[in-house]
This record gives sequence, C-alpha cells and structure tokens, in this order.
Amino acid sequence: MSKTQALIVSAPGAAFEKAEMPLRELAADSVAINIKYSGICHSDIHQVRDEWFEGIFPMVPGHEIVGEVTAVGDSVTKFKVGDRVGVGTFVDSCGTCDPCKRGMENYCRTGNVQTYNGRHYDGEESYGGYAKDVVVKEHFVLKVPENLDYAAAAPLLCAGVTVWSPLKHWKVGPGMKVAIMGLGGLGHMAVKFAAAMGAETYVLGHSPNKAQDAKEMGATEYLITAESFESHKDTFDVILNTVSADIELDALIGMLKVGGTLIYVGVSGNNQSFHPFSLITGLKSIAGANTGSISGTQEMLDFCGEHNIVSTIEMVDASDPKAIDDAYARVVGSDIRYRFVIDASTI
Amino acid sequence: MSKTQALIVSAPGAAFEKAEMPLRELAADSVAINIKYSGICHSDIHQVRDEWFEGIFPMVPGHEIVGEVTAVGDSVTKFKVGDRVGVGTFVDSCGTCDPCKRGMENYCRTGNVQTYNGRHYDGEESYGGYAKDVVVKEHFVLKVPENLDYAAAAPLLCAGVTVWSPLKHWKVGPGMKVAIMGLGGLGHMAVKFAAAMGAETYVLGHSPNKAQDAKEMGATEYLITAESFESHKDTFDVILNTVSADIELDALIGMLKVGGTLIYVGVSGNNQSFHPFSLITGLKSIAGANTGSISGTQEMLDFCGEHNIVSTIEMVDASDPKAIDDAYARVVGSDIRYRFVIDASTI
Repeated sequence: MSKTQALIVSAPGAAFEKAEMPLRELAADSVAINIKYSGICHSDIHQVRDEWFEGIFPMVPGHEIVGEVTAVGDSVTKFKVGDRVGVGTFVDSCGTCDPCKRGMENYCRTGNVQTYNGRHYDGEESYGGYAKDVVVKEHFVLKVPENLDYAAAAPLLCAGVTVWSPLKHWKVGPGMKVAIMGLGGLGHMAVKFAAAMGAETYVLGHSPNKAQDAKEMGATEYLITAESFESHKDTFDVILNTVSADIELDALIGMLKVGGTLIYVGVSGNNQSFHPFSLITGLKSIAGANTGSISGTQEMLDFCGEHNIVSTIEMVDASDPKAIDDAYARVVGSDIRYRFVIDASTI
Repeated sequence: MSKTQALIVSAPGAAFEKAEMPLRELAADSVAINIKYSGICHSDIHQVRDEWFEGIFPMVPGHEIVGEVTAVGDSVTKFKVGDRVGVGTFVDSCGTCDPCKRGMENYCRTGNVQTYNGRHYDGEESYGGYAKDVVVKEHFVLKVPENLDYAAAAPLLCAGVTVWSPLKHWKVGPGMKVAIMGLGGLGHMAVKFAAAMGAETYVLGHSPNKAQDAKEMGATEYLITAESFESHKDTFDVILNTVSADIELDALIGMLKVGGTLIYVGVSGNNQSFHPFSLITGLKSIAGANTGSISGTQEMLDFCGEHNIVSTIEMVDASDPKAIDDAYARVVGSDIRYRFVIDASTI
C-alpha cells in the first residue's frame, strides 16, 4: 500500500505529530492529488477531541483541500495530470438513495463517506487533508479556478460551500436583505457571497471591533444582535446563523420579514425552543442546511472565480506540528481572522 | 345606526342569546350582505371564553360567512345586488405596510381588522357572522362560485383558506407526498385540497376510525402517527400540522424527505422544541402560516368551484340559541365530522 506524510493525532485530544499514513490505491475512477493547502475547520477540533462521537485514531483531519492532480485512473475523464483541484467534506456517497439520485450527495441517506474520520464503503479508514497526498474518486473532486489564490481557496471547500448552498437554495439576490449571524470562518464567507449575489447584507454579532472587516467584505452594516431585535423587526428575508451557540430564536424570527427564513448552519449541541406563533404570524420558517452537493460546490467555485472571492486567511507553517495545536487554541478562542490554512509543503 | 339580529355572548363564557346588534353604515366602498350561513370555528370558542386574550363583549363570533349582496356603496365596482359572496377572518387592513403592499393583507403589520372581536380603524367594534347581516369593504369580500353548495362553502373562508395557502405556498402538486396531521375542520379540507392538487396525500392521526373518511376525501392512506416515525422516515415533501396540541417535532421532521417542510397551522399554546441537527441533516424546514390573502382566498374559492370542493358539514338550527352552546361542546370533544355551519335564517 502507498503511503503519504501526514499530520496525525494518535488518540483523542493528543498533540499533533508527523507520521506516514496509508494512501488509497489509485482505482480506475480515482484521482491522485498532491495537496498544496488544507484549511483548518472548527469541526476538525471537535473530532480530534472526540467531542461529537467516538473517532477513528490515528486521525488525519482536514476537509478543505486544494492541490494538483498527479495521476489519474484509467476511466477518469474529468481530470488530467496538473489540474488544479479541490476536495471537500466527503469523498463518496451511495449513489442509489433518493438524495443521491437528485444530485444531493451531501444528504446521502446511506451515509456518505466523510473525507476523514470515516470509512470507505470497502471498510478502509478515510484520512484527510493535513497530508501531502490524497486519492479521491473523480466524481468527488472539484475544479479550482486558476485565478483564485491557491491557499485562500482551500476554505471554500467547507466553510464556503456550507454557507453558499443555503444562500443559493433560498434564492438570495438583488432586492433582498440578508443578515449573517457571526463573523467567523463561515460567516465571513457568507458576507462575501451574499454581497456578491446582490443582496443588502448585514452582520449580526456581539463584537463591534469586527464592524470594519464586515464592511470591507461587503456588508452594509454591522449590528449588535441584542440591540437590534426591535430596531430591525420584520427586516430580513434571510438570517443565516453561523454561530455554534444557543440563539434567541423567537427574537431573531421577529427580525424576519413576512415570508422570511432563519437558517441554521452553525449549531450548539442543545435543543432549540420557539413559539409557533412566531412563525405563524409571518409565514416564517426555521431551516437547516449541511455543506453542499458536488454540483453545487463546483457552481460555488466557478462563482468565486468570476467574482474573485476567496477566504481571508492566515497561513500555518507545520514544520513543527505544535503549530497546529497552537492554531486550534486560537480557533477555540475566536482569535483568527478568519481561517487558518496549512501550507502542506511544510508537513 | 342600523341594526341586525345576531347570536351574542354577553360576557366571557356566557351562554348564547339573541339580540339586536349595531350594523356598520354602508360606506361608498362597502357592501351590505344578507348572511345565509356561518361556520363555527374552534377559534370562536377560544374567543367567547377569553382563552386567548381579553375580548370585546358582547361578542358576535363568526368568520366563515356566506351570503347575498343586498346593497352596494357608491364606489363599489366588484359587486352588485344579488351576488353570492363570502367574508373570511378579516375585514380591513392598513394597505400601507410592506405585506399589505405585497398583497398579503393577512400578515398586515399594522394589524388587520378581525371580522369580530376587534375594532375597525375608526374605533367601532367588529361583529361577526353569527348574524343576519354584515357590512364589509368590497376589497375584503370574496365571490363564491355558483356551483358550490352554499352552506358547505362557508367553512372555506377560514378552515379552507388556512390550509389552502400553505399548500399553495409550498407548491404542493403532482409528484409530491404530503401528510396532513389531524383530520378535523382544517385537516379534512387539507386532505381534499392536497389530493385535488395532485399530491399523494396521507393523514397522520391517532384515531383509525377516521381512516375510511380520509380515503373518501382523497387520501392514499391513514397512518397512526406514533407507529409511522420509522416506517415513513424521509418520506414526505410537506407535513401540514393542523393539530392544536404539542407534537413530537424531531420525530416528525424525520418523516420529511430531504428538502421537506413541516408547517404549523394548528398550535398548542406552548413553546416547541427541536434539535437543529434534525433540520441540518436534511435541508429541512419548520414553518408556520396564518389564513390567506384576499387574492389567495379568491383563488382558493375558484379552485373549489372548478373541483367542486366544499367542507363536510353538519347544519345547526339556531332557533334556540342553546344549539350553539351544544355545538361548541361537541367541537371541544372532537365530536363533529367535520364542521358545524349555522343556518342564519334561524337566527
């Protein structure tokens, strides 16, 4: 079996270290990718610490991958050696369930194969993007437009598509007012997208020192959430919640225009409570969305190419693996504007 | 001031009695209607008993009204004497707020004028349909197709449009699977509509003795809710909840197909709780809707005319006003298939 150099966590909560890890064999329908950059997603932290469920260790996190094709399987038609490509949060899906047949592989009912901390349908563990190489089925590989900054494009593969998909699904565009809750990894991408889609875009947050950044990303105004429930009642067509904490649901629903939708992409682990009258009195909805389909991810990347949209990033040199542990501490402390990206040449 | 004979409740929870009540003067933009039939809505019961908020007494309930035009104001263009008309849950709206300008008078942000137990913008109390006459602004009067049974058409004006509007808004039609929760006044109309719209229609309930009725109304199957969470997982495009009680929200969301919506039109008075993962893992939504716009109500009535859809009713003779108290007791006990309608000639 082939191997690749990777950053691994050997047990829940352990420090990062470097190690050689197995690489999947290049099947006829697969593409070998030399990883250039890999984004750090907050969900990586939850998973290396076993905060969500019992993980598979050693673990190689990373599902915001950009790189270059180094080899293709015999039946591959979409890619050739040298292509600039990306891989997101999943690398296979059943292809036979209703959502898969509708092209919504992200909602595969059999359970799609997560890019890391999962198992391929043949039983092999999946290892992610904090590595030098990865082998992925071509259907799950995306084309990254040439004009985009390579490193800053990496977070598009998870943070980007996670907010792009619901903005697109709920038809955000000109004439609409959209509020993005939280200006972090997901939120800052959502502001850039909503503004580029032509919507009047607002940020709801609690930290006024991010107001200038929000405006530079395209927001009309940065609002302090708790001070805006009354002043911005019946205002927004869409509120996109990127915050991983409990929210004041009824008050936020009150900020929706008649017919508006509040969408969860961020979640706390807790149940949420609301009064049905909040919805009924305004034809309002509470919704949730999870990453994006393969075709949707490609559509997002193409849109980014046209509008030259990338993530705002800080590069991580992983020569000393401790740099990842340090970056994680800063993510948990919300001390990053707005996404860490690992330079895979340092792995 | 003109007067009309009505069925009134003089104080919260009092028995019905007959009395002469004020009738609004016929303004230039208004229509005088001789009421033929008036439906009994569960919300009438809540209001005469002050269960929702402090009501205005004496009260004349009734917001499911059909009758005949007896006089028109000078500027009226839509109606002439002898026309067959209906009046629903509201009789005026501000006309200037965003929803009113978008033709969604049912979500008027100023607060529309409820057909009864409310106040007109000039301060006069509003009195409803348990009466011989009513005077209403022409914009808020609907045309009732000639082919519909007059009495059985009355409940279309509230029960009908309350379920029609969300089914229409969420684009129910051929190729979709729709579940109607609860087979009462609202639910039985929803089954008839969803089936006529071409959807594969199911009823979710707890009382298998209504299964035959459901099928006669167009349902494919009557499902016992609690027994169907697993067997009908990921099944429905839309679940319309017409039940005025707490529901098992996460389990019901689990019955939605990817991209599906659960809509509240029935509510308990309590907060509802759900886990955001229920929504996020399937691009699902929880929504709420309240009655319908004037244009939407007319569209529904025209659809009913084309498809010959009316409510399944039991007539109430109000010669003795105690008959209304008795009917209320049966509504509260769910002992009615499926809507009471008062014969206004007996008032």
